Amino acid sequence: MKVNLNPAKGMRDITPQEKEIRDYVEGVIVNTYKQSGFELIETPVVENIENLIGSKGGENLKLIFKILKRGEKLDFAKEGFTEEDLADLGLRYDLTVPLSRFYCNNRANLPSVFKAMQVGNVFRAERAQKGRYRSFKQCDIDIIGDGTKSAELELIATTAKALNALNVTDFVVRFNDRRVLKAVILKCGFTEEEFDGVCIIVDKLDKVGLSGVEKELNEKDYSLGASANLVKALESINDKGTSCLVEYGVSEEVVKDVEEILNQSREFADGKYDVEFDFTLIRGMGYYTGSIFEIAYKNLGYSIAGGGRYDEMVGNFIGEKIPAIGFSIGFERLVNQLMDEKFKVPNLEKLVLLYESGDKYIDVLKKADDLRAQGYTVAVYEKAKKLGKQLNQFTEYGYNKFAVYSSEETEVKDLSSN
Amino acid sequence: MKVNLNPAKGMRDITPQEKEIRDYVEGVIVNTYKQSGFELIETPVVENIENLIGSKGGENLKLIFKILKRGEKLDFAKEGFTEEDLADLGLRYDLTVPLSRFYCNNRANLPSVFKAMQVGNVFRAERAQKGRYRSFKQCDIDIIGDGTKSAELELIATTAKALNALNVTDFVVRFNDRRVLKAVILKCGFTEEEFDGVCIIVDKLDKVGLSGVEKELNEKDYSLGASANLVKALESINDKGTSCLVEYGVSEEVVKDVEEILNQSREFADGKYDVEFDFTLIRGMGYYTGSIFEIAYKNLGYSIAGGGRYDEMVGNFIGEKIPAIGFSIGFERLVNQLMDEKFKVPNLEKLVLLYESGDKYIDVLKKADDLRAQGYTVAVYEKAKKLGKQLNQFTEYGYNKFAVYSSEETEVKDLSSN
Repeated sequence: MKVNLNPAKGMRDITPQEKEIRDYVEGVIVNTYKQSGFELIETPVVENIENLIGSKGGENLKLIFKILKRGEKLDFAKEGFTEEDLADLGLRYDLTVPLSRFYCNNRANLPSVFKAMQVGNVFRAERAQKGRYRSFKQCDIDIIGDGTKSAELELIATTAKALNALNVTDFVVRFNDRRVLKAVILKCGFTEEEFDGVCIIVDKLDKVGLSGVEKELNEKDYSLGASANLVKALESINDKGTSCLVEYGVSEEVVKDVEEILNQSREFADGKYDVEFDFTLIRGMGYYTGSIFEIAYKNLGYSIAGGGRYDEMVGNFIGEKIPAIGFSIGFERLVNQLMDEKFKVPNLEKLVLLYESGDKYIDVLKKADDLRAQGYTVAVYEKAKKLGKQLNQFTEYGYNKFAVYSSEETEVKDLSSN
Repeated sequence: MKVNLNPAKGMRDITPQEKEIRDYVEGVIVNTYKQSGFELIETPVVENIENLIGSKGGENLKLIFKILKRGEKLDFAKEGFTEEDLADLGLRYDLTVPLSRFYCNNRANLPSVFKAMQVGNVFRAERAQKGRYRSFKQCDIDIIGDGTKSAELELIATTAKALNALNVTDFVVRFNDRRVLKAVILKCGFTEEEFDGVCIIVDKLDKVGLSGVEKELNEKDYSLGASANLVKALESINDKGTSCLVEYGVSEEVVKDVEEILNQSREFADGKYDVEFDFTLIRGMGYYTGSIFEIAYKNLGYSIAGGGRYDEMVGNFIGEKIPAIGFSIGFERLVNQLMDEKFKVPNLEKLVLLYESGDKYIDVLKKADDLRAQGYTVAVYEKAKKLGKQLNQFTEYGYNKFAVYSSEETEVKDLSSN
């Protein structure tokens, strides 16, 4: 047998110590969402390939893991067989596409406004590099069927609450709206076709500064007037915030919605985190249609959560307009950050019960159950010859108590005191 | 976009109602295992294809979902390109192969006796049929590094305890040992090469009876004497149990081990379930080397849990003998059975808080948090025009309380009383 002990490239083995932290973090997030009335659903990691390829997933479509057809369907020798004939299934690259399909498939049995939660791994064949995985977990909440700003408010408040429950505070919710971006950029004199390209440059404002943006705009083939207008607009929006948006062609209704979402969200935050309008927030997915938002934490170069409104994706499946909006926590980034901050799972009473090879094993197991009834997590192991060394190892594995089995009295001791 | 609302063939969407039951069942199993000192680990669903193909997985190897190579590696037009060149990865078909690889990969940081738990989906491209899925969950506990019968005893006791915690009792743990099977069948006069084929026939005893087994044996090319001996042995073992095994060439040491496991397990069961020696238990996987066991529940035609000792698989990765044993709960079968029995998740206080479109939404969210602090799970929805119909729907979705938001007093009422 050819031996390869490593996980597949870009995939990871999760050890008990890391798994304990991950499960705790996931539990806090899921409980927060559940208590807020979001209903957990589950979709398969494998989807029909047409549904993945047909989604507006931008760059992600190039990163799909495709699954080979099986049996007679893979008639490899047949003439005219092309690469497209090889695969009929693929691994999902996000949770939003499966959710949209799920909603349409199960709509008859779901509330007309459906508040859904999904936790699961998604797969992208990214170039492997440190901290970037090819399989990673996302925790999403979505509201389907509510086109009002209540949905924005609830998603932002609930996602923030989940982070707060992990003692993550002092983050910034960055908020923008695709309609604002569109109106301003067109008003400055750019064309519809130029919109995506201009967005990519605006996205870099916090890295390259206003002069950097100006330079990049001028290097492209855009009208110089439009570029100058945009630089002025960026300055003005940076100074005056949302109050100047109407001048730049944004409808009063949209401005009012944005301001209400900002104000009410800030009020709910009550100083625990900030909520900011940020015209330079873009988010790459082609499927966003309105609000877009991210959570920036400390000086990390990436967001730990992101989302937005995608009012057209669900409808695309069934030819009907159905509003939808989602907010996704990037679980791996959050956990990595917490582990960097030496996050500890709140104290567990973990006890190791040691026995001698001559003990009647079933009596040892019964004693372990007695200790469990007292609230301990109890692992049972044979006593090693070098007890001190064995106990040190269990301390490393996160145990804090031990006992040596005796048919008479089994005394529980602190591991630190051995 | 080509529209296909269904999940991929053999895959499933899990609705909120079913997910709630599944998560409760999984939670009970995981907590039981965790309290017993089994450590949760996680392995990727995607493995390098050589590790899957090189395992002794029997029929499962034909059912592997293979993942297409990406980019320049898929040089489809190249001469001599064969089907083997198409895939470099595959989806795991069980949790035992990834666990064995995991153990070898992470051995330096694991206890010398490692008690592991894994919960996750596995994938097999089975012929799709009712109740058989191509993606299904398994809950496994394994002990690696302990070759003594303590491991058998702990796995049986702990798996039974997890079922008991779900109020599943009155099941039968069927126990056998591959070494017993081997000794008896060879002693009867069959050859090593005939062993697997004879096992397949013995496996059918409970369906076709002794005369049926005799008929099938005689239809094959086996020595008539060997077949007659085996029929006599089956009768004798059925009458006398393990006490006659030594006559059939089983070593006294193996018989003593089997009897001690049976006796101590029965003592621990304390009448809540049965533990039986069953010579006709075979289990198909080629990797089992000693004890094998299953849990039969009611008159289901299949087991709800199964496992055994696989003392060679881990060692195969690193050229060293490392004892290992596992017990796996077939989660889908267990959940399906519980749902058929109208299993109910212990009562949750689920409240729906309704608001009018004119209410200040952030105050509604604050009120929801107040109610959550009182212990309710609270979902927030806009009040519909037809309140009665809306409340009936929430009753269907498992809610039992409701309240209509008021800035003064928000009264909680029973949903049944509306």
